[in-house]
Amino acid sequence: MSEKIKAYGTEAADKDLQQMEIERRAILKNDVKIDILYCGVCHSDIHAAKNDWGNANYPLVPGHEIIGKVIEVGADVKNYKKGDLVGVGCMVDSCKECSACEDDLEQFCEKGMVGTYNGKDKHSRNRTFGGYSTSIVVREEFVLKVPTNLDTKAVAPLLCAGITTYSPLNHWKIKKGDKVGIIGLGGLGHMGIKFASAMGAETYMITTSEEKSADAKKLGADDVIISKNKDEMKKHTGSFDFLLNTVPVKHDINPYLQILKRDSTMVMVGAIEPLEPMNGGNLIMGRKRVAGSLIGGIKETQEMLDFCGEHNITSEIEMIDMQDINKAFERVTNNDVKYRFVIDMKTLKEA
Amino acid sequence: MSEKIKAYGTEAADKDLQQMEIERRAILKNDVKIDILYCGVCHSDIHAAKNDWGNANYPLVPGHEIIGKVIEVGADVKNYKKGDLVGVGCMVDSCKECSACEDDLEQFCEKGMVGTYNGKDKHSRNRTFGGYSTSIVVREEFVLKVPTNLDTKAVAPLLCAGITTYSPLNHWKIKKGDKVGIIGLGGLGHMGIKFASAMGAETYMITTSEEKSADAKKLGADDVIISKNKDEMKKHTGSFDFLLNTVPVKHDINPYLQILKRDSTMVMVGAIEPLEPMNGGNLIMGRKRVAGSLIGGIKETQEMLDFCGEHNITSEIEMIDMQDINKAFERVTNNDVKYRFVIDMKTLKEA
Repeated sequence: MSEKIKAYGTEAADKDLQQMEIERRAILKNDVKIDILYCGVCHSDIHAAKNDWGNANYPLVPGHEIIGKVIEVGADVKNYKKGDLVGVGCMVDSCKECSACEDDLEQFCEKGMVGTYNGKDKHSRNRTFGGYSTSIVVREEFVLKVPTNLDTKAVAPLLCAGITTYSPLNHWKIKKGDKVGIIGLGGLGHMGIKFASAMGAETYMITTSEEKSADAKKLGADDVIISKNKDEMKKHTGSFDFLLNTVPVKHDINPYLQILKRDSTMVMVGAIEPLEPMNGGNLIMGRKRVAGSLIGGIKETQEMLDFCGEHNITSEIEMIDMQDINKAFERVTNNDVKYRFVIDMKTLKEA
Repeated sequence: MSEKIKAYGTEAADKDLQQMEIERRAILKNDVKIDILYCGVCHSDIHAAKNDWGNANYPLVPGHEIIGKVIEVGADVKNYKKGDLVGVGCMVDSCKECSACEDDLEQFCEKGMVGTYNGKDKHSRNRTFGGYSTSIVVREEFVLKVPTNLDTKAVAPLLCAGITTYSPLNHWKIKKGDKVGIIGLGGLGHMGIKFASAMGAETYMITTSEEKSADAKKLGADDVIISKNKDEMKKHTGSFDFLLNTVPVKHDINPYLQILKRDSTMVMVGAIEPLEPMNGGNLIMGRKRVAGSLIGGIKETQEMLDFCGEHNITSEIEMIDMQDINKAFERVTNNDVKYRFVIDMKTLKEA
């Protein structure tokens, strides 16, 4: 039997989030039911709630950086039991049959992966509802084991900001001694610094804001380049083995292409919109590459969490109450957070 | 002793090319002196003569698709002798010491490769002068062996148009069964079709011009996609293993990114200028890549010529007299050539 639970969501693009009731499906034989402890606040949550991407279905309950405890498992569940500390990221289902799913890249499922919220639930007539809620029911294959040696609250953002930055660094095989630049210091960029640094790279934060230098170094950057300073950029011409571009808005990528080494790649993970015109010559001279990367598959997300357990990596967070979510959205929009808000779900349960 | 020879060049950006005398350096111990038989007309020749790239030095003698016979060799030359059929492409020198040169990628020489024309000659006080002339003196390492089983005139364009398209197809390891799209049917594109097809790829010509279909198929394309037709493009969504983009002017690459497969690459070889804004989302969704490629190194150029010898590949050409070069420039600018002009240098020698 499906169940009514408490959540925070919105009925329309122009409305604030507010407390509501949503229906969760009854657990199926392969499902895990999770009591949600914490949920990170991702910039995508705001885009979705406000229908910036034009595909919102209301009511919409955001949240895809979910940490919780297993409270019930279906008859056929093999890898989880009651009491386990688990996570759920951006996806809760996919076809598991296409070539992308076979390659452990469910995010590129050819039939379309099911987003943790605003997706079509394959097992009920409902849409999917995200982690701004007290509990969630998820197919076993999309549940992740969370290392128990970390600050659990600060693990939540790893499920989106973490895997989004880990995956390209891992896929492009960043290794000890590589010169890596992380462009942009926000929710994604601060994780990029931590991962690149843990992988042994000579890690540079590349930012427009001089005032972020000290913080970047505290997070693990070996040095900082202020991208507005043309002389400083010029010193690094043709020198980077890899660039991870986390800037979430329209910008000019040409200056970054110029600091890439021959045959090297800049990966975009932030800007899902038209960029300033790229000069083809900046790719042609040096056989350079620009690529994109989207979160990561479930297998790689588990590897990322295990890597974080080993290297003691978590996100920098600021805890909020569920009731303060609209203020938090405003602050995220104004880049006023270091570096991720995490909702303490106790505040919803006790509301 | 240096020598005065006949050439066709220009004294200024706004002047037509006309007959002039230039000075060639005396041959050094590692030099090969070549009697020029044929020289292809590359679009770059026009850009250089008209100073479109802002780096022209006058007098300027274009031409970097040179075929000729060896008439003299320096004391230390090992691989060439009088009478050999040889070619010279876009480069006549490089440092031969940097990491790019060590990787056989002289086109990316960190100290700057020396262009066949409009470059600084390392061995004289002169600039370099190109192939619109009766003879040329070139360092042995930058001279190429030309297969003797081919139509020699039609080999000339392989030295630039050929290697520019062969190199990315070779570097990205195009193989039998790959679905490859060649975008744009001109001097570069027509060679792209021939190479992709000879490598065993399922080769598509992607063009805006319906009237080029028949020709593309004659050149070896398995099929043709008219890129202005959105329905036709849509049928190929996410299906191409590789795209070679030869369009030489500003254009919108977003529709092409959408027909690429996950984890696949489009390589730009034509447009050395700002493109229409690229949507980062088109890279992010499918972890796709855009790269650039510039001609090819000397070793790879020799491999390309040998490949052409084996597979009986030459360029489609129209022969012209040296005296008709200004009319030819006009026709190239108007895309009125199928697919490359080649100058018969006899017409200059006898002038």
